[in-house]
Amino acid sequence: MNVHGKHYRTIWLKEDDPRVVQIIDQSILPFKFEILDLTTVDQVAHAIKAMIVRGAGLIGATAGYGMYIAALNAPRDSREAFLVSLRTAGEQLKATRPTAINLAWAVERTLAAVEGAQDVEEMIDLALQTATAIADEDADGVSLIEEISKRKGGEPVNVLTHCNAGWLAFVDYGTATAPIYAAHDRGIPVHVWVDETRPRNQGARLTAWELGQHGVPFDIIADNVGGHLMQHGLVDLVITGTDRTTYTGDVANKIGTYLKALAANDNGVPFYVALPSSTFDWETRDGVHGTPIEERDATEVIYMEGVHEGEVVTVRITPEGATAKNYGFDVTPARLVTGLITERGICAATEEGVFGLYPEKRK
Amino acid sequence: MNVHGKHYRTIWLKEDDPRVVQIIDQSILPFKFEILDLTTVDQVAHAIKAMIVRGAGLIGATAGYGMYIAALNAPRDSREAFLVSLRTAGEQLKATRPTAINLAWAVERTLAAVEGAQDVEEMIDLALQTATAIADEDADGVSLIEEISKRKGGEPVNVLTHCNAGWLAFVDYGTATAPIYAAHDRGIPVHVWVDETRPRNQGARLTAWELGQHGVPFDIIADNVGGHLMQHGLVDLVITGTDRTTYTGDVANKIGTYLKALAANDNGVPFYVALPSSTFDWETRDGVHGTPIEERDATEVIYMEGVHEGEVVTVRITPEGATAKNYGFDVTPARLVTGLITERGICAATEEGVFGLYPEKRK
Repeated sequence: MNVHGKHYRTIWLKEDDPRVVQIIDQSILPFKFEILDLTTVDQVAHAIKAMIVRGAGLIGATAGYGMYIAALNAPRDSREAFLVSLRTAGEQLKATRPTAINLAWAVERTLAAVEGAQDVEEMIDLALQTATAIADEDADGVSLIEEISKRKGGEPVNVLTHCNAGWLAFVDYGTATAPIYAAHDRGIPVHVWVDETRPRNQGARLTAWELGQHGVPFDIIADNVGGHLMQHGLVDLVITGTDRTTYTGDVANKIGTYLKALAANDNGVPFYVALPSSTFDWETRDGVHGTPIEERDATEVIYMEGVHEGEVVTVRITPEGATAKNYGFDVTPARLVTGLITERGICAATEEGVFGLYPEKRK
Repeated sequence: MNVHGKHYRTIWLKEDDPRVVQIIDQSILPFKFEILDLTTVDQVAHAIKAMIVRGAGLIGATAGYGMYIAALNAPRDSREAFLVSLRTAGEQLKATRPTAINLAWAVERTLAAVEGAQDVEEMIDLALQTATAIADEDADGVSLIEEISKRKGGEPVNVLTHCNAGWLAFVDYGTATAPIYAAHDRGIPVHVWVDETRPRNQGARLTAWELGQHGVPFDIIADNVGGHLMQHGLVDLVITGTDRTTYTGDVANKIGTYLKALAANDNGVPFYVALPSSTFDWETRDGVHGTPIEERDATEVIYMEGVHEGEVVTVRITPEGATAKNYGFDVTPARLVTGLITERGICAATEEGVFGLYPEKRK
């Protein structure tokens, strides 16, 4: 994807020093565009925890590159000491965000990849190969938009999305917004309703910014608006990302997704979730009761960041002393999900649907 | 209700000059507490339009006092000229907020009250009497909370509310939060989930402020959170206000109410709407398609007001040049509403239920 006309991925190795991993500081977008260097596991863990990088796919890729950094920094005197150091780093990375299943998946995938090798240098190479492979995985679903566009005789297709599961949440394309960019690039008229996504405003800040950079028409709306739009035929399709989806089709995603799924269901609007296979939780049957939900700091509700006279400032938006609660995710039951968009195709949000695409996961 | 220990209504006549109507400037709460004088119809219309006063009940009461101000300022040389002036003021007031049915009701009620009188002074008196009567009407529903409290063995009753239909939205008590204050004052433990209510933040600003002033425990939550709380048994009861409810039970209220009603319905949580009879729309059968929905300025979505270093400032919270849409209300279909709380009691959100309490309205 392009930023100010130059091509960027969301995570990459520094051009003149492949021991340095670089990322875009998403915590200050869209007000500033800054690139950060990562050279230690502590820095990587902080970047994930403080949401300098965020989004299921990018969290996984960052954990992958974090394991590569861990490998670079691990003691090389013995294979065992090297692996212990790598496993410790993996535990530290897995602890940063409890709901994001891509974290554990990236860590375990790297450990599985390196453990077969004898030589430390070979293990570092394998860690980097794994990180690169994770970063290159993506999902697709442009056919959904194409079909609606045909049905509407070329009228713009209105897609509603919640949070940011676009380019910034992945590496070079995104999941939930990938079909939108693909449709736009093929000349299919598309318009995006961008949920603000309180309290961190990933929609109003990040999705709006990346759609704007790419030239896709959009309008930001308060999270409260989607139901009204669907009641009045103003939404053709909902596509969101997910932080963890059970093999039975229950979708954990940014808090508020469940409310949009209820409204879509009540109004016959198709509700799709885009995810790479790494986001599946192959262990949990009941996502509503079995998914750990991250509770974040109340200050995210009480304070708001924005631009005032050219400066980025933080303002208090609640009465002095007011208390708040900040649950990061909710779980949309599979019965409300029309389908899952994966890198292997689209399937029903059911055990049969998912195992149909991933037969090797059936136990 | 008390503010800083002193008793206030939300609208009243100035103590030493009954030709001046005074209001609290709600547009700057909770950051500042300021009282404004109203002496012209233009000022009253501006106060309603700019949301210096807001909330169904208070909008009605303000329109009532606005008609009193119109009567004070009307030409007294002829009864006809006086009435023409009053009717013109009424049209101006009715045009301020398209969704608020209390406006037309208050204006028509005043015109009906004064038109029988011959003498201009008597008409001014009748206008004031009508305004006072409108300001004193209220709804009640404390029994709902009392029953849940008994069932929970005295554990705190968790009530979720959206927007502000509390004291600030009415005159001296409120509708949606009236049962909460009543329960709290009777020693029933109650805790309120306060929906932030984007984009104007009436929950985070006004409801949180008034609950805090009264000492009722609460937590502010993003509008996205309610569904998750209901899935996990953390909400016992939802009570909201309404800006217009059809005689068939369709509820127009602050945008986002419909999403909470869907979640309540999906999780078996009772969903009640509190309203004085003036908020009923006795003409419209289909609220979802028949209610005019106000579209407000996009700047309310793009900018946010808050306190920075002791000063109230406005910050831009979206990328430069981003566009937004701002629908003010949505309509919750009657099938999702457990019951209506009115000043005549509680009824089902059906034509039969409503006419059961208001038989004189049956045509």
